[in-house]
Amino acid sequence: MNTADLGLPVAVPSTALFTDQYELTMLQAALRSGNADRRSVFEVFTRRLPEGRRYGVVAGTGRVLDAVENFRFDGTILGFLRERGILDEPTLEWLADYRFRGDIWGYPEGEVYFPGSPVMRVEGTFAEAVLLETVILSILNHDSAVAAAASRMSVAAGDRPLMEMGARRTHELAAVAAARSAYVGGFHTTSDLAAGFRYNIPTVGTSAHAFTLLHDTERDAFTAQVDTLGRGTTLLVDTFDVTEAVRLAVEVAGPELGAVRIDSGDLLLVAHRVRQQLDELGAVNTKIVVTSDLDEYAIASLAAAPVDAYGVGTQLVTGSGHPTCSMVYKLVARATSDDPDAPLRPVAKKSLGGKSSVGGRKWAARRPDENGVAEAEVVGTGEVPAELADHQLLVPLVTGGKVVAREPLDAARDRHIAARAGLPLSATQLSRGEPVLPTEYR
Amino acid sequence: MNTADLGLPVAVPSTALFTDQYELTMLQAALRSGNADRRSVFEVFTRRLPEGRRYGVVAGTGRVLDAVENFRFDGTILGFLRERGILDEPTLEWLADYRFRGDIWGYPEGEVYFPGSPVMRVEGTFAEAVLLETVILSILNHDSAVAAAASRMSVAAGDRPLMEMGARRTHELAAVAAARSAYVGGFHTTSDLAAGFRYNIPTVGTSAHAFTLLHDTERDAFTAQVDTLGRGTTLLVDTFDVTEAVRLAVEVAGPELGAVRIDSGDLLLVAHRVRQQLDELGAVNTKIVVTSDLDEYAIASLAAAPVDAYGVGTQLVTGSGHPTCSMVYKLVARATSDDPDAPLRPVAKKSLGGKSSVGGRKWAARRPDENGVAEAEVVGTGEVPAELADHQLLVPLVTGGKVVAREPLDAARDRHIAARAGLPLSATQLSRGEPVLPTEYR
Repeated sequence: MNTADLGLPVAVPSTALFTDQYELTMLQAALRSGNADRRSVFEVFTRRLPEGRRYGVVAGTGRVLDAVENFRFDGTILGFLRERGILDEPTLEWLADYRFRGDIWGYPEGEVYFPGSPVMRVEGTFAEAVLLETVILSILNHDSAVAAAASRMSVAAGDRPLMEMGARRTHELAAVAAARSAYVGGFHTTSDLAAGFRYNIPTVGTSAHAFTLLHDTERDAFTAQVDTLGRGTTLLVDTFDVTEAVRLAVEVAGPELGAVRIDSGDLLLVAHRVRQQLDELGAVNTKIVVTSDLDEYAIASLAAAPVDAYGVGTQLVTGSGHPTCSMVYKLVARATSDDPDAPLRPVAKKSLGGKSSVGGRKWAARRPDENGVAEAEVVGTGEVPAELADHQLLVPLVTGGKVVAREPLDAARDRHIAARAGLPLSATQLSRGEPVLPTEYR
Repeated sequence: MNTADLGLPVAVPSTALFTDQYELTMLQAALRSGNADRRSVFEVFTRRLPEGRRYGVVAGTGRVLDAVENFRFDGTILGFLRERGILDEPTLEWLADYRFRGDIWGYPEGEVYFPGSPVMRVEGTFAEAVLLETVILSILNHDSAVAAAASRMSVAAGDRPLMEMGARRTHELAAVAAARSAYVGGFHTTSDLAAGFRYNIPTVGTSAHAFTLLHDTERDAFTAQVDTLGRGTTLLVDTFDVTEAVRLAVEVAGPELGAVRIDSGDLLLVAHRVRQQLDELGAVNTKIVVTSDLDEYAIASLAAAPVDAYGVGTQLVTGSGHPTCSMVYKLVARATSDDPDAPLRPVAKKSLGGKSSVGGRKWAARRPDENGVAEAEVVGTGEVPAELADHQLLVPLVTGGKVVAREPLDAARDRHIAARAGLPLSATQLSRGEPVLPTEYR
């Protein structure tokens, strides 16, 4: 196979090795003890939101579905596990036939979540379900962290477009997933070509300071750029003197100049000055793009400034202070024997130092008040109360091993905007606070 | 090709798309302006360390070499760029033949660095060198952030082994790179099977709470695990009651039990109690492994506790508060014409809001004091002073497009331990402070 897609000369030929070793040793021990086939329910949830955050955003669901489909143990992988002495032969034989044949339910991608929300539920035999823990958590923890930051930034930006530009600040493939998550959270475009290629997200980008510095004069650089990218391009105006560069930009491109980009300095002050200058030069339709170390607070602080678009990098891809979610994957119920019809029994680790879990296979619903605004996240076991039946959150994602919930990325993005709009207004305050909905257990 | 290694049904068939769009539009404009072939020098450096950190750790160098080798534009990629209208035909033709034919120098992997250290220098035509910006920064910024956290943890752990267990808290492929970086920074093993497969890092792992909960009793679970993994295994003892579990563990496995793992609670207190209990039960050689939300400070706080090994997850893979470095890739010099013999001219963006650069192609050396302890990071342009000639830091990595510096990962790990040992003692204080070496410019 071509392994260049990982930037690695050696292949990692499926998603099956994105797995902590203990999943496989548990499998081996369960096969030996005769309990591997006990019907089991694992749930993904978080005990808390990052400090001060009002809501979480489920992202990565679509990537989880891809990962589950591609979770296979081929000869190369089995050879590695054998050679390292990690597993015995019966376990390796079992893995050779592995594919997930169970059911996965989950909050659909883009939905919001709260502490205790069962954002994903994996049901199958213990053996088939335990193996998926690491890869599911990797995807959901990373992607949801970026989407949550993106959502806050998109609230702060209002109607102004947001460009994702963080590829250089995170792992090269995390960057692709981050661009995807940013889009789900409300961003509009990305600088990352791989994300454009893979997820069809619109890509943007024109030039950096290096391009101006390559040329003998700023005029040469601007002329070269306008010649090839057209007058609608975005010229970067802060390599030397901003005022001189703006003057030159309009002289070279004319008032049809698409935009100027400011990447340093006091953006509030500079944006006002540049707007005034552009207007005086007749470039009244030329937009102003700002891109310097922005986060949701910096974006909000520019709300009254004449800024037309924001480019966000570091703070987006690192989750704006919270680069991972604390989602866990816990066994919450399992059958009392390996008989497929044996009853499920709720199980949970005992609390010690706050790591408590609630046992039992759960449903979840978001209860609206009389105005249709969400007032509580309700999580329970057993029958769903009739008044909550129409407000349930979990949908089938995989049924009998078959993915049943593929959707375009825009569907997740639209769902997120709608879900956020259904929360109390205080959800979109940037200031620190408690989760905007209480979680009620039934 | 088999695309399952990305968990993606569609291929990203080389590293060439791990690139911000503006690199390609700059290329197109430079080709049009006739300046694409100007000999150019780009340098990777950081203006500051994360707040309070005493030193940085270069990691990812080996991955950069892989990425540069695999940076090719095949028909699929060119078709994407054409279809999206991102580039014109002459530029697409130019890219079809692209491979990097220039030179790369850098601090060898595992070396420490300081603000202003030119950790990598890429030399070639503007066209060939500008394209590598994003993928080089992605790798170095991510990997070095993890390695810096790992290094601090390894200082705190002293001689006790460190296990990397963070895969579930970061993107599934970032996790593989994180395990690699952790190893460079001083970790010993990883739970991540893909990292074991790809980088030959020793892997570890035995069981989680789910395994105990699957069984009807804790005794059944321990018995099953010991039956298949042997008495040398590590039993997880905090699912229900730790004291009862430790008693049961030694009863089931005998005093030959390899280790017990504690994953919750007050680790200091619990470790002391468990050690006393194990000793009273005659299991004097049974080790104690702790794994609950550790960072370098928590590890240090357990220095006097009877703990034999640490497993670290979240805080490692998220860089212990600093998930990315702030490395940038700047054009520092370029020829005055496209004549290959034209002289190089230093270039730099003017300072505005702290984003200043120092122009010129740089060398770097670490000056020792009379005792051989490093006392300054010296960075300069022009001739290297004779007294620093033997202390230079940059080594050739790629020469004329050919990778010349492949090495086993252990070499980078050993280099890091040695480089850290050559710093003043205060380098390894965990408390916040200034960079332990000043950077002097010549």
